[in-house]
Amino acid sequence: MNQSPPFLFERVAIIGIGLIGSSLAHALRQNGLARKIVCADANPEHVKKAVHLKIVDEATRDNCAAVENADLVILCTPISSLSKIAAEIAPSLANGCIVSDVSSVKQAVIRDVGPSIPAHVHFIPAHPIAGTEHSGPEAGFAELFKGRWCILTPLPGTDEKALKKLRTLWEVCGSMIEVMEPRHHDQVLAITSHLPHLIAYTIVGTATDIAEDLKQEVIRYSASGFRDFTRIAASDPIMWRDIFLNNREAVLEVLQRFSEDLTALQRAIRWGEGDKLEELFARTREIRRGIIKEKQA
Amino acid sequence: MNQSPPFLFERVAIIGIGLIGSSLAHALRQNGLARKIVCADANPEHVKKAVHLKIVDEATRDNCAAVENADLVILCTPISSLSKIAAEIAPSLANGCIVSDVSSVKQAVIRDVGPSIPAHVHFIPAHPIAGTEHSGPEAGFAELFKGRWCILTPLPGTDEKALKKLRTLWEVCGSMIEVMEPRHHDQVLAITSHLPHLIAYTIVGTATDIAEDLKQEVIRYSASGFRDFTRIAASDPIMWRDIFLNNREAVLEVLQRFSEDLTALQRAIRWGEGDKLEELFARTREIRRGIIKEKQA
Repeated sequence: MNQSPPFLFERVAIIGIGLIGSSLAHALRQNGLARKIVCADANPEHVKKAVHLKIVDEATRDNCAAVENADLVILCTPISSLSKIAAEIAPSLANGCIVSDVSSVKQAVIRDVGPSIPAHVHFIPAHPIAGTEHSGPEAGFAELFKGRWCILTPLPGTDEKALKKLRTLWEVCGSMIEVMEPRHHDQVLAITSHLPHLIAYTIVGTATDIAEDLKQEVIRYSASGFRDFTRIAASDPIMWRDIFLNNREAVLEVLQRFSEDLTALQRAIRWGEGDKLEELFARTREIRRGIIKEKQA
Repeated sequence: MNQSPPFLFERVAIIGIGLIGSSLAHALRQNGLARKIVCADANPEHVKKAVHLKIVDEATRDNCAAVENADLVILCTPISSLSKIAAEIAPSLANGCIVSDVSSVKQAVIRDVGPSIPAHVHFIPAHPIAGTEHSGPEAGFAELFKGRWCILTPLPGTDEKALKKLRTLWEVCGSMIEVMEPRHHDQVLAITSHLPHLIAYTIVGTATDIAEDLKQEVIRYSASGFRDFTRIAASDPIMWRDIFLNNREAVLEVLQRFSEDLTALQRAIRWGEGDKLEELFARTREIRRGIIKEKQA
């Protein structure tokens, strides 16, 4: 008699079937991690696409229907929507269910989602550090998380068994796991992710505001450096709006440092201080070597 | 009787066999554009490597020996070295020889090289918009210029035949050609290339200055955005120092605009003005689409 291997989860509900949600669905399916994968999305087009692309077994606009009987719920919607969704689904969450998320800010998620989670449910915030500049259910692919880090920020007293299950899920999807304090996570991400995106959005915005004829030339000659910024400045606008509003303190702090450094460089250029420029430009090469060594290039 | 096809140039002298110089040598060779390719480099290691890698027919440390009898001389050294090199090679330049360059700033090159060029020599500044974050003779490859733009900024009264020959050279190497006023070139490049590099250097520098333990985490989680900046901030330090010092006016002007825009964004984050953030983030997506359409992505 054949017996199929047990699934890590019986029913996974993905709330929000955008780039991350759909990639997760692909990865769960490909790795046989869930018996049933369902999704809910407020956007009827996304629901239709998720069904059409066969990303999930079931798709609905009803968050409560999706989470019913689920042993894992992963919130994959922009941060500003999480508080309302958590309150809405709370009464429908099954006993022993794990609720997690994928947001780029962790303190705000704990603040917004935490209070709604019933005592019989395990809430474990998570952040897979992966993404592309594309959005929507058709942008997802199973390999998105491979070789990338996933940071878990469990609250004190989190159930060890639940934590281990969530950890296993991300590991099987190909991620490397790190456990971190939520506050520390938000500071690290402010530097590695939020500031770079803010700068990229700004520089592309500055270029957009220049005269129309020059704009065409900026696009044409973008291979000289500008291009690299436009890729990350093409990321989802709502998601990024929410990140900046919800990691305000840490972002403003690194932004302040950046502005000081930029002003110093501006002054060096104005006064022709070539040695200062060269010194910085030589130093920044080292960081690149570190990234190549860590296989994150 | 077999007759080999005529070469566009009989003897090409490449002064400076770094990334661009060696890529050019590869491209000239691969496309049969020169009967003989020689190079000169002040760095004896570069001379040795150029010979060892068989990039050129002859390599020397003597600029004058290299340019003797050449019908094309291409200066591929950092901007700050050009004035001295031009004065040094001037007496050795053959009648009707074309002298060109590959620098990212054109007004400064005209200012520094122009006065030394004898009347019997054609001076045609050029800028192939191509590069990688790697440096040195071993970094070059023939395809570097394929599908990329090369901007020519000929001075008034430039010999049409000489201009056409230089144009053909870059076209055969795979480039698309644009002719531009030097001043306009410097303004366009300040936005598309110099500002992005300055910002990338700054942000990587800001991250380098933080506490050592955090630095390792910045490297580890760099895939979340930071990584894209480290690539361009790994470009050649001397080359970039010279670019900023020699396109000062245009760089400071776009930098001023950028700083204003960044301050406005900083204020929007501080005051929680989500609509302003979202509006900008949606607008910047359009530019990316333009770049994809222009096949420069």
